[in-house]
Amino acid sequence: MTQAFTVKDYIRTIPDFPRPGILFRDVTTLFGDARGFRMAVDQLLLPWAGTRFDKVAGLEARGFILGGAVAHQLSAGFVPLRKKGKLPGRTIEQAYDLEYGTAVLEAHEDAIRPGEKVLLVDDLLATGGTALAGLRLIERLGGEAVGCAFVVDLPDLGRRRLLEDAGHRVHTLCAFEGH
Amino acid sequence: MTQAFTVKDYIRTIPDFPRPGILFRDVTTLFGDARGFRMAVDQLLLPWAGTRFDKVAGLEARGFILGGAVAHQLSAGFVPLRKKGKLPGRTIEQAYDLEYGTAVLEAHEDAIRPGEKVLLVDDLLATGGTALAGLRLIERLGGEAVGCAFVVDLPDLGRRRLLEDAGHRVHTLCAFEGH
Repeated sequence: MTQAFTVKDYIRTIPDFPRPGILFRDVTTLFGDARGFRMAVDQLLLPWAGTRFDKVAGLEARGFILGGAVAHQLSAGFVPLRKKGKLPGRTIEQAYDLEYGTAVLEAHEDAIRPGEKVLLVDDLLATGGTALAGLRLIERLGGEAVGCAFVVDLPDLGRRRLLEDAGHRVHTLCAFEGH
Repeated sequence: MTQAFTVKDYIRTIPDFPRPGILFRDVTTLFGDARGFRMAVDQLLLPWAGTRFDKVAGLEARGFILGGAVAHQLSAGFVPLRKKGKLPGRTIEQAYDLEYGTAVLEAHEDAIRPGEKVLLVDDLLATGGTALAGLRLIERLGGEAVGCAFVVDLPDLGRRRLLEDAGHRVHTLCAFEGH
C-alpha cells in the first residue's frame, strides 16, 4: 500500500468471512496504520466540531478500539456496550434482532449520568440493530445520544435509515457496495 | 467519587464476578471518567518517554479500549490480538495455558513488519499467560516487543515475574492484594 489517501484505501476486503458469500470489510489494516488510524478518528468527529462530549460509547469489540481513541481525542470518558454477561457491575439490557433470533446488549447502569452528551462509535454500520440498541441504552440511562459515527457504511443493506428514522444523526466515512 | 487522585481510586471491586470468591477489579469506572482515562494512558507511557513506537498491540477485549487510546496518543498503529477465529485475514497462532486447558491467541500475519517497535497493553496482569502469548506473537512477526503495560497488577498471583524472566519490561500502574 504505497499511495493511500483516503480512509477507504486502507480497508481491505476478505471474501467468505465469516461465512461463504460474505465480503468482510476488514478495518484492522486501517487501524494498524498510524496515519490511517488518526485520519479515521479525525474524520469521525468532523460533524461535531466544537461539541463537548462527556462520553464515547463503543460497541464490542472493534468499536472498543475506535472508541478508546475517539474518547482520548475528545478528552471524554469511554463507555463499553457489551454482549450479555461480560460487564461485572449492575447493568441494564436492550434486546435486538439478529438474522436468526435475538441478542442482548448491556451497559452498566451507572455508566452514564443524566444529561451527559454521548457519541456512539463502531467500525461498521451493517444491520444497525446493535447500534440502535446501544443508542437506546444511552437514552434509557438519561444520556443525550448526540449521534453515531461509523467508519464503513454498507448502503446495500439500507439500514442507515433505521437509525435516522429513530431521530439519530448518522455519520459514516466511506461506503462499500455488496455485503 | 468526589476526590480521586490516583488511577487506583477510580477502579472499583466487584465481589464474586465472574465466579464466587473472585474479587473482580473493574476498570470501566476508570475508563468512564475523562480525567481517569487520560491519566491512565499518560501513566502507562511514562517508562517509555521519548521512545518512538510503530504499533500498540491490545489484548481482546478491554485491552482494545486502552490500546486504541494509547495508539492514538503515540500516533502509532493499533494491532488487535484476538481469540481464535475472530480475525478475518491470514493469522499466526500462539497457544497458552488456562487454569483448565489451553487457549489460542491470534494475530494477522501482516499486522507487524520486521523491526517495528511494539508496546503491548492490557487492563490487568493476572496469570500473564495471554500477555506472554501476545509478546510471542509480536516477536514471531519480527517485531520488537519493547515492553508491556497494564493498569492493574495482582501481585499475589506473582506472574509479573513470568514476563520479566522472559526478558520483557513490565510496567503496571497499581496493585490490588487478593484476587
